[in-house]
Amino acid sequence: MRNKTTMDGNKAAAHAAYAFTENAAIYPITPSSAMAEYMEIWASEDRKNILGATVQTVEMQSESGAAGAVHGSLIAGTLASTFTSSQGLLLMIPEIYRLAGELLPGVIHVAARTVAAHALSIFGDHSDVYACRQTGAAILASSSVQETMDLGAAAHIAAIKGRLPFIHFFDGFRTSHEMQKIEVWDYDELYKLYDMDTLMDFRKNSLNPMHSKIMGSAQNPDIFFQNREASNQYYDRLPSIMQDTMDKINKTIGTDYHLFDYAGAYNAEHIIVAMGSVTDTIEETVRFLNDHDGKYGLIKVRLYRPFSTKHFLKAIPAGVKRITVLDRTKEPGSAGEPLYLDVIAALKDSNFDNIPVFSGRYGLSSKDTTPAQIKAVLENTSKRRFTVGIDDDVTHLSIPTSDFFLWLPNDIYECKFWGLGGDGTVSANKSTINIIGNNTDLNVQAYFEYDSKKSRGLTISHLRFGKSPIHAPYLIRQADFSACHNQTYMHKYPIVQEIKDGGCFLLSSGLNEDELESFLPGQVKRYIARRNIRFFIIDAISIGRETGLNGKISTILQAAFFKVTGILSEKTAVKLMKTAAEKAYGKKGDKIVKMNHLAIDIAIKSVREIPVPESWKKCVDDNLDHELLPDRPETLNYVQNVQKPIVKQQGDNLPVSAFLPYADGSCP
Amino acid sequence: MRNKTTMDGNKAAAHAAYAFTENAAIYPITPSSAMAEYMEIWASEDRKNILGATVQTVEMQSESGAAGAVHGSLIAGTLASTFTSSQGLLLMIPEIYRLAGELLPGVIHVAARTVAAHALSIFGDHSDVYACRQTGAAILASSSVQETMDLGAAAHIAAIKGRLPFIHFFDGFRTSHEMQKIEVWDYDELYKLYDMDTLMDFRKNSLNPMHSKIMGSAQNPDIFFQNREASNQYYDRLPSIMQDTMDKINKTIGTDYHLFDYAGAYNAEHIIVAMGSVTDTIEETVRFLNDHDGKYGLIKVRLYRPFSTKHFLKAIPAGVKRITVLDRTKEPGSAGEPLYLDVIAALKDSNFDNIPVFSGRYGLSSKDTTPAQIKAVLENTSKRRFTVGIDDDVTHLSIPTSDFFLWLPNDIYECKFWGLGGDGTVSANKSTINIIGNNTDLNVQAYFEYDSKKSRGLTISHLRFGKSPIHAPYLIRQADFSACHNQTYMHKYPIVQEIKDGGCFLLSSGLNEDELESFLPGQVKRYIARRNIRFFIIDAISIGRETGLNGKISTILQAAFFKVTGILSEKTAVKLMKTAAEKAYGKKGDKIVKMNHLAIDIAIKSVREIPVPESWKKCVDDNLDHELLPDRPETLNYVQNVQKPIVKQQGDNLPVSAFLPYADGSCP
Repeated sequence: MRNKTTMDGNKAAAHAAYAFTENAAIYPITPSSAMAEYMEIWASEDRKNILGATVQTVEMQSESGAAGAVHGSLIAGTLASTFTSSQGLLLMIPEIYRLAGELLPGVIHVAARTVAAHALSIFGDHSDVYACRQTGAAILASSSVQETMDLGAAAHIAAIKGRLPFIHFFDGFRTSHEMQKIEVWDYDELYKLYDMDTLMDFRKNSLNPMHSKIMGSAQNPDIFFQNREASNQYYDRLPSIMQDTMDKINKTIGTDYHLFDYAGAYNAEHIIVAMGSVTDTIEETVRFLNDHDGKYGLIKVRLYRPFSTKHFLKAIPAGVKRITVLDRTKEPGSAGEPLYLDVIAALKDSNFDNIPVFSGRYGLSSKDTTPAQIKAVLENTSKRRFTVGIDDDVTHLSIPTSDFFLWLPNDIYECKFWGLGGDGTVSANKSTINIIGNNTDLNVQAYFEYDSKKSRGLTISHLRFGKSPIHAPYLIRQADFSACHNQTYMHKYPIVQEIKDGGCFLLSSGLNEDELESFLPGQVKRYIARRNIRFFIIDAISIGRETGLNGKISTILQAAFFKVTGILSEKTAVKLMKTAAEKAYGKKGDKIVKMNHLAIDIAIKSVREIPVPESWKKCVDDNLDHELLPDRPETLNYVQNVQKPIVKQQGDNLPVSAFLPYADGSCP
Repeated sequence: MRNKTTMDGNKAAAHAAYAFTENAAIYPITPSSAMAEYMEIWASEDRKNILGATVQTVEMQSESGAAGAVHGSLIAGTLASTFTSSQGLLLMIPEIYRLAGELLPGVIHVAARTVAAHALSIFGDHSDVYACRQTGAAILASSSVQETMDLGAAAHIAAIKGRLPFIHFFDGFRTSHEMQKIEVWDYDELYKLYDMDTLMDFRKNSLNPMHSKIMGSAQNPDIFFQNREASNQYYDRLPSIMQDTMDKINKTIGTDYHLFDYAGAYNAEHIIVAMGSVTDTIEETVRFLNDHDGKYGLIKVRLYRPFSTKHFLKAIPAGVKRITVLDRTKEPGSAGEPLYLDVIAALKDSNFDNIPVFSGRYGLSSKDTTPAQIKAVLENTSKRRFTVGIDDDVTHLSIPTSDFFLWLPNDIYECKFWGLGGDGTVSANKSTINIIGNNTDLNVQAYFEYDSKKSRGLTISHLRFGKSPIHAPYLIRQADFSACHNQTYMHKYPIVQEIKDGGCFLLSSGLNEDELESFLPGQVKRYIARRNIRFFIIDAISIGRETGLNGKISTILQAAFFKVTGILSEKTAVKLMKTAAEKAYGKKGDKIVKMNHLAIDIAIKSVREIPVPESWKKCVDDNLDHELLPDRPETLNYVQNVQKPIVKQQGDNLPVSAFLPYADGSCP
C-alpha cells in the first residue's frame, strides 16, 4: 500500500515524471507550469530520480526550444521530459514528428488546454492533444489525479521499452488543478518496474564518438517511403507493451488498468466512449442509472495512440445497440470529431458495423460537464451529431439537459467558498483540504473556479470530503456549507440559493442583525428561512484589523469554517491550523505566525449563529440590477446580452445566438 | 479563351494569388519558395492586382512570423496571403486556428511536402497539409498545374465570400515544379468573379479607430463553447459557396470543377478516392482499363475541408462494390489514414455503409506513383490496408505491382536528359520546353528529377510534348529520346535501357568510334544494337572550349537535341534558341550572347549519328562494380545494402527490410 497524500494533478504528474527524467527542458504555460516548477524545486532540493541522479532542468526560450532540447538530450542518450499545454504543445509539433521518427522515448506531460481560436482560453479541452494525433507519438490519457500519478509512470516505462515518445495528458485545470488525496509512487517500486536492459540499449544507441553514426539525414524519393515503413513494428508492438506495463502496475498497486477500460452493465445497450476526466462523471452517472433499470456502459480510452482496434472491439459488450462518442474538441469543417472517426473506423467490418454511432462535443474550454449532461447523452436517440452543455438555438445541435441531479453518497460533505481573487481564500482552502486529507481517513477533493484574470475577480472554491471515494470532476451545485467572504457578493450572486436544504451559510460581515435585515436582499432572506439554512456570521475584517493581519482574512475564515462544520474537533482543528500557519508563514517570521495563531483563537470564539426570523419566509425579491448602461447601440447590445449575464455568473446560460454578432471573437 | 503559357505550378499559384493579395508575408522553404519569389518580382515590377494595387511583400523571420503578419494584415482589413511547405506550415498552425476562429479570409498556398520524421525530405506528400486538417481552415486541393492556376483563384474568391481562411495545396515538386502549357487567368476576368460587396464588408469589419472594437480577448468556461459554436453557419455555407465559385469559373473558362469530381465508368464497381496529382494518373489508368472491360472509377477530392458528406455521397456511382481510399501520408499509430477516416465516416448510415473500404498509402516523399501501381490498387481485393509502390517484406502491407505500362497517345514524344547538377541541363530544358510550348500548338510537360543536394548530383529531366493533352504526373520510364550529358554516366546508370525500341540516344562525348567501342559497356552496346536505337554524338566539351562557353555546355546540347529530334524545323529552332539566349544572357552582356549564338550554330552542324556495328548485338556484359568497400562491418552492411543501390539509382527497389537496422533514420 502506497502512502497517501493530498495533491493536484500537476504535482502527481511531476512526481511520476521526476522519477524517470534526467533532463527536463521546460517553458511555462498555464495550466502546465506547476509541473515544470515542481521539477525545478525538487532538483534544487537534490531529490534523486529512480536512477539515483538529480534531474537537470533548463528553461528554454519557447516551447519549440524545449522540445528541441528534449530531442537533443534523447539523441545523446539522456532521458528527457517536458511539460506543456495548448499553443505550447503546437509549437512542439515539428519536433514530435522527429522524436517519433527517430524512435526516441521522450515524454511530454500535457495539461490539456483549449487552443485559441475566436478567443484565447486558458481552460481545458483536448484540442491541443488532438492536434498531435498524426505525429506518431503514443498518446496516453489520465482521467483523474490518481491516474495521472499511476499512468504518468506508465508512459515513461512503456516509452523506453517501446522506443516511442509519449504524450501523457490529463484535463487542464479539472485534473491539473484539482486536489485529491491519492496514493503516491514510491521510487523504489518504480525502479523495479523500469526495464534496465532497454535503458542500456537506449544509451548504447545514442550519438557517441565511440560508436559514431549519423542522425537527421535527408532522404530522397527512392528510399524515404521504405524507411518510414521500417518502423511499423514499433507501433504494432506498443499496445501490448503498454498492457504489459499496466499489468505490472496493476499487480504492484492493486489497480486494474487496461488500454480500454469498460465500466457499466454487462448487458449494456448504450455505451459512451470517452477519455479524460469526464469518464469519472460518466461512470458514476451510469452506475446510478443502471441501479434504476438503465442498461448503460462506458469505455474509457487510455491508450489513444497507437489506437488498438483489436483491444477496443474486445471492450465493447456484445449486446450493445447504440454507441456515443464524446470528444472534448471542435474541429470545424471535419467529417467528424477525432475520437468519433477512430471509433467508426474501428467498428467497420466488425460485429458492430451496423450499430448507430452518435457523436457529441462537450466541455470546451472547461465548460463544466455534469451528470445531467451525461444523462442527456445517454437518453439521446435522435441527434446523431450533437453538442451538450450549451443551448444552441442557431444550428440546433445541442441536446436538452434536464435538471437531473446525481447525489453523491451521504457521507460526502460539499462546501463552496466565494472569495475575491487575491484575498487568500484559495490558499486557505488548499490548507484546509491538506489538513483534512492528511490528518483524517477521509477522501478529499478541491477545485478552484476562477477566471483568467486570477486576481481581483471572483473565486469559488469547491471542497468535498467524505469516507467514500470522490468521483465527481464537476462543480458543486448544491453545497452542505457555503461561505461568502465578501459581503457585496450577496447582491450579485445566488450564493445561498446553491445551498442544500438545512445546510450552513457563513457570511463574513461586520453588520449586526438590524443592518443585515436591511442589507440582505429579500430573495436571500426568504431562501434562508424557507430552506432551513443555518446562518453564521463572522466579522473577519475587524478581527483582521485587531490582530494586524488586516486584509489577509483567510485564516480567520478557515477557523470559522472548522468551527461551523465540526469536521474536526475544535481542539484538533486549532492545532492543525496553527501548524499549517507555522509552515506557511514560518519563513516570514515569528510575528506573522503569532498574528495568525491569535486570529485563529479569536475566530473560533467570534463566529456566531444568527437566528433566522420567521418573517424572512415572506420576503419579496429586491431589484438587484443597478448597472450603468453605455450609449452606443452596438455596445449596449453586447453589455445587455453578453456582459451582464457573465458578470452575474450566468454566462453558462447564454445561448449560441447571443454570440452570433461576435462569432469572430470580436467585442465592441 | 485564355492565353496559354508554359509555367510550373508555383508560378501558376503565384499568378492566382497575386490577383487577390494586398500584403504577402513570406518566408522561403522548398518547394514553395518560388511562389514568394514571384510575388516579390512582380511587386518590384509594379504589377497590379485585380484591385489596381501593387502587392506589398515582406519577408519575416520565420513561417510563424509570416503567419502572424498575415493575421495582422487581415485584422486590419487588408487581403493577405502566404506561401509555404512542410515544417513551415506546421509553424503556422497556431495562427491558422486564429485565422479560422476570427473568420479571416487569408489564403495559404502550400506546395505540399513531407514532414521530417526519421529523416528530412524536401520532397512531396500530404503529411503537412493533413497536420492542419483540425484547424478550421478550408482546404482545397489542386491536382495539376492548370488546376493550381484555376482553383488557386477559387480559394481566394471563396475565402472572402465565406469568411474563412483557405489552405490551397498542390503536390510539392510534382506539381509545384512541373512545367505545363496552361491557360492563364486574365485579371479582368478574375475581377468579375470577385465579390466586391463582401470585400467591402471585410474592410468595414476590420479593426479601425473609427469604429473601434476588441479582438483577441480571453474567454472563460462560461461562454467560450457557445461562442465557438456561433461560427457553425460559416462552415455549413462554405461548400455551396465553393460550388458557386466553381460554377462561375466553369462558366467563364469552360471547365467542370466540383467539390468532388467523378471520373470513370457510370457502372463502376470499384472506385478510388484520392486528391492531388495522383488523380491524373488514376484517371488515365481507369480510362485505359475501362476500355478493356474494367469497371472502375475515381472521385477526386477538391474541397477537403469543410468535408461535405452530402456532396461526396452524390459523387459515388450507385452500383459500387468496393472503394479504395489513397492517402499520401503516414500517420503511425492512427486508426487509419486521414482521408480514409473521413470516407468511412461519410459512408456510415448511407446507402454505401456496407461496402468494403480499402485504405492505401502511396507516394511518400515524392515516390513516383505509376499507372502500374494504380492498376495494382484497382485489382487489390484482399489487403484492406496496404502500401503501394514499395516492397514491404517486413510487415507485408505492400501490394505487388505488375510491369503494366500505360502507353501515352502516339503523338506524345518523351525525352530524358541525364545531366550533372549545376551543368545547365535543367535550365536548358526549361528553355526548350518554353520554346516548344510557346511557339507551337503542342502541349508540353517538363519535370526535373534531382536529389536534395541539387548541385553536383545527378539530374534527370523528363520532357513530354505532343498534340494530345498530357496527363502523366509520373516519371518517364521509356523515352523516345534520351541524352547523356556526362559520359561517365554510361558506366553507372541504365540510360539506354530506358529508351523505346527505335528511339534516339544522344551522348555528349569527345571520343571517336574506336574509343567509344572500348569505352561503352557491353550491355549498353548490345541494347543499342538489338533495339535499333539511333546513336548520336556531340563533343559539347570541345565546342564549349572553342566558343569560350567552357563548362556551360547546355546550350550546345539543346541545339543538338533540336537537330536530332526535328521537333521544330532547323531554322525555326535556331531562331528561337537564339532569342531565348538573348533573353537569358542579355543582362550579362553582348559577348556572352554572341558566344551562345556561335555555339548553337556550331552544335547544329557538329552533332552526328554513329553507325551501330552489327557486332554490338553480341556484346557481353561488363562488370561495372568498382567500389571501394569500407572495413567496419556495420558500415559495410549499410554501403552494400543501402548506399550502393541508391548510387546506382536503384534505391526504389530496396525493400523495407533493408532499412530495419536504420528504422530510426540513423546511418553509420
